[in-house]
Amino acid sequence: MRIVSIVGVGLIGGSFGLALRKAGFDGAIYGVSSESSIEAARQLGAIDRGVTLREAAAESDLIYLSGSIEAILETIPRLGEALNKKCLVTDAGSTKLAITTAAQRSLPADAFVGGHPMAGKEQRGVQAADADLFRDRPYILTPTEPALRPVVAEFRRLLTAIGANLVEMPPEEHDAVVAFTSHLPQLLSTALAATLAGQDTDYIDKMFGPGLIDMTRLSLSAPEIWMSVIATNKEFIDKALGAFQDTLNRVRKQLGNSELIEVFRRGQDFADGIRQGRPK
Amino acid sequence: MRIVSIVGVGLIGGSFGLALRKAGFDGAIYGVSSESSIEAARQLGAIDRGVTLREAAAESDLIYLSGSIEAILETIPRLGEALNKKCLVTDAGSTKLAITTAAQRSLPADAFVGGHPMAGKEQRGVQAADADLFRDRPYILTPTEPALRPVVAEFRRLLTAIGANLVEMPPEEHDAVVAFTSHLPQLLSTALAATLAGQDTDYIDKMFGPGLIDMTRLSLSAPEIWMSVIATNKEFIDKALGAFQDTLNRVRKQLGNSELIEVFRRGQDFADGIRQGRPK
Repeated sequence: MRIVSIVGVGLIGGSFGLALRKAGFDGAIYGVSSESSIEAARQLGAIDRGVTLREAAAESDLIYLSGSIEAILETIPRLGEALNKKCLVTDAGSTKLAITTAAQRSLPADAFVGGHPMAGKEQRGVQAADADLFRDRPYILTPTEPALRPVVAEFRRLLTAIGANLVEMPPEEHDAVVAFTSHLPQLLSTALAATLAGQDTDYIDKMFGPGLIDMTRLSLSAPEIWMSVIATNKEFIDKALGAFQDTLNRVRKQLGNSELIEVFRRGQDFADGIRQGRPK
Repeated sequence: MRIVSIVGVGLIGGSFGLALRKAGFDGAIYGVSSESSIEAARQLGAIDRGVTLREAAAESDLIYLSGSIEAILETIPRLGEALNKKCLVTDAGSTKLAITTAAQRSLPADAFVGGHPMAGKEQRGVQAADADLFRDRPYILTPTEPALRPVVAEFRRLLTAIGANLVEMPPEEHDAVVAFTSHLPQLLSTALAATLAGQDTDYIDKMFGPGLIDMTRLSLSAPEIWMSVIATNKEFIDKALGAFQDTLNRVRKQLGNSELIEVFRRGQDFADGIRQGRPK
């Protein structure tokens, strides 16, 4: 792999460029992004230079789509004609079925493999990029073609070299899992903060401990980004919300009942398990 | 104030002793607790020596009840006969109505003022005690007597000296507010972790980012402690759960609808506001 192009050079794209360099990648890294992001990314060493999408499609061995889900969905059909035959296209969007379906529609069958690095930060933008962002974090690949080209094996090796924990599964399974582990927590944090905002009671915004700070941190996420996540994973999110509502109904019915301790113990055990890397 | 007795020398009680010393309190600090906690607290400098509850009641100017809610409710009636006339009794329990009602039943009317330091840590026990635990955190007092004795003013000055942000309100109002800001977040964290534990889907315990870690941190809390919190604040918690369920029903109905962004914006603004100390 000699030329990698990062399309959408923000936190994730910039971190991917820095991580490639840290892992010893000595090819060229191009960026397709706004002028200000290109300039910032160049100064940080995350990319070598800015190019157009058409130039990236013509020259790259790997195209890494790391904009918003909307931007990824808009870019895929525009790659089609210009894409050179050896190029592998991948993405870092946080839902996978809509994106892999769009790729199957617009790109040669073996040109695309979907991806999702489960890593992030509160800050956005290339200024927050970090060469170790992917280290020890899950990185999901969702290949849909059984006969994968050698370049996919090379991409897998790159991901391992930047410290990511590679997991592979079909796009539907990815979306079903993250509905529970990522989208449900986001919606609960948002709904908690919105519920508290809606109370007349004085002092609700003054009398709290560190627990409320933890539980409202995800509410700070950019609403626009979440609109695309939800739009592309409605069915699985609805299922996750339904499962959560069942648990909460049970909790509410058991308030003051000693059986409620079982729900607490189950939750404690799960929370402890994911911190220890212990299977549930 | 010459003699302060801390009954239940764990994280909160031990931190109160250390904070008093750091603020320059030069009277005696006694502890009523298990032998091992007394020994650890003495070594840390949180107390000077262990005494019995009867000795503490006979000699103290201030009795600080910092065990579990259950322990506080059991201790109050046992203080009654032995309590010297000048002594002020206070507590650090996280619900206030049940405890102040018990105090009104068993103690002289002006001998008790309820309290709740909204501070904590994941770790428990006196080993985790910290002289700065109360610094810049809300400390709620719930006086029920209009004619308070001078010792209450002295206790207020002590709390200010250890850096706490003093707030005063009736016990019912305290319990109504913490149902939203503390008990609701706890139940959501527990219900989230229990819901995820109950899913058959593989990978749910492997594919997650830092958001799930934030959202399940409270699930690690000791279930036994929460059983007493819930038992003594059922009605207000039920109300808070109802308000949250209304928001979540709305979120679920609006999945994929652009109006959902309003809930996200309201949540984001609240979460931002409590971090800036901005009134909602």
